[in-house]
Amino acid sequence: MREIYHEQLDDILVELERMTRTVSAAVRRSTSALLTADLKMAEQVIASDVRLDVSGELVEEKVFDLMARQAPVANELRTLIAALRMVADLERMGDLAAHISKVARMRYPADAIPIELRGVIADMGRVAERMVNQAGDVIQTRDVQVAHRMESTDDEMDTLRRNQFRLMMDDAWPHSVEVAVDIALLGRYYERIADHAVSMARSVVFLVTGELPTPQ
Amino acid sequence: MREIYHEQLDDILVELERMTRTVSAAVRRSTSALLTADLKMAEQVIASDVRLDVSGELVEEKVFDLMARQAPVANELRTLIAALRMVADLERMGDLAAHISKVARMRYPADAIPIELRGVIADMGRVAERMVNQAGDVIQTRDVQVAHRMESTDDEMDTLRRNQFRLMMDDAWPHSVEVAVDIALLGRYYERIADHAVSMARSVVFLVTGELPTPQ
Repeated sequence: MREIYHEQLDDILVELERMTRTVSAAVRRSTSALLTADLKMAEQVIASDVRLDVSGELVEEKVFDLMARQAPVANELRTLIAALRMVADLERMGDLAAHISKVARMRYPADAIPIELRGVIADMGRVAERMVNQAGDVIQTRDVQVAHRMESTDDEMDTLRRNQFRLMMDDAWPHSVEVAVDIALLGRYYERIADHAVSMARSVVFLVTGELPTPQ
Repeated sequence: MREIYHEQLDDILVELERMTRTVSAAVRRSTSALLTADLKMAEQVIASDVRLDVSGELVEEKVFDLMARQAPVANELRTLIAALRMVADLERMGDLAAHISKVARMRYPADAIPIELRGVIADMGRVAERMVNQAGDVIQTRDVQVAHRMESTDDEMDTLRRNQFRLMMDDAWPHSVEVAVDIALLGRYYERIADHAVSMARSVVFLVTGELPTPQ
């Protein structure tokens, strides 16, 4: 009985890791859809967000069920609380990846990103994807050190966002207000994906050490 | 013993309602700081966000403590899970109100909002504040009908955001890219505050009916 319970707890973490890899792919594909004006890929990311929400609901139901039937304490309770937090993060990250794809779809067949901003958007996409994958690794390994290192990867994202603003605020900005607004919102979406990845890593630290994650 | 347990559950909801009113005041004051270029008020909102995070951590600790000691099921378990969700929403709303105040602070002593956009920003601020207060009312009354009605208030916010985009995308837009970016991000912050208010109301519906809130 006890063994099945622990298997179920492990299954939840395995499923969360799987969802994390799905989100990472969604981030990569969104960035690609944006940089190559690929309508089909953008539509696929938007459609797959619904499946991610369904996966999230299934994990939540499993957590509630275990909470109600097993009256978990200590470690097990922390695992379930951390799982609920991580589901919420994953659902938001999926939404944000879909938002990015919606910008690609809205501007299609035009390119949403002017040439001089393609580099910074590609970098933001790469950093966000890497951080989501790191969150997946942290779930898999429970490695608190990697979790802490993610905070400095997040600093890279902040630097990219500042560069992006500098490019846009240049008096010589040759593009429309529409483009500037797209870029500013895209920057915000990537930044939030990175924040949620850090938040997931903090939830794993909480799971392992009992140390409460502080809000960002 | 049982009675003290229920008092503690009630205390948590009372505290969440109190935090909701604090957030509502932060939203109102942020909008005011923005529209009157009031640096002192902006600084106050930014400083008070830290206190909100501390309140949130205290509520979380109480929830974890009750979960570990009381092995809650059914109703009580739902209340505690809903409380954790609402704390997360409140902390984010506080951050978003602080983000709004930071725009006011960054542009001070200039006005951040050009005259033709003051109306739509004031309206967004009012709708967001109203929705946060409705979330507080829903916590207090557990009125599922009011919770459902909030979804239509949220539609008002979406309409305002579309109007705001239309004003900015006008070919005759006479302002800088910087102003457009500020306005776009401010619109996003107000919209997210409204989303979190709806999410809180859904958590109360879950608490009352057991119906799982679906992600937005």
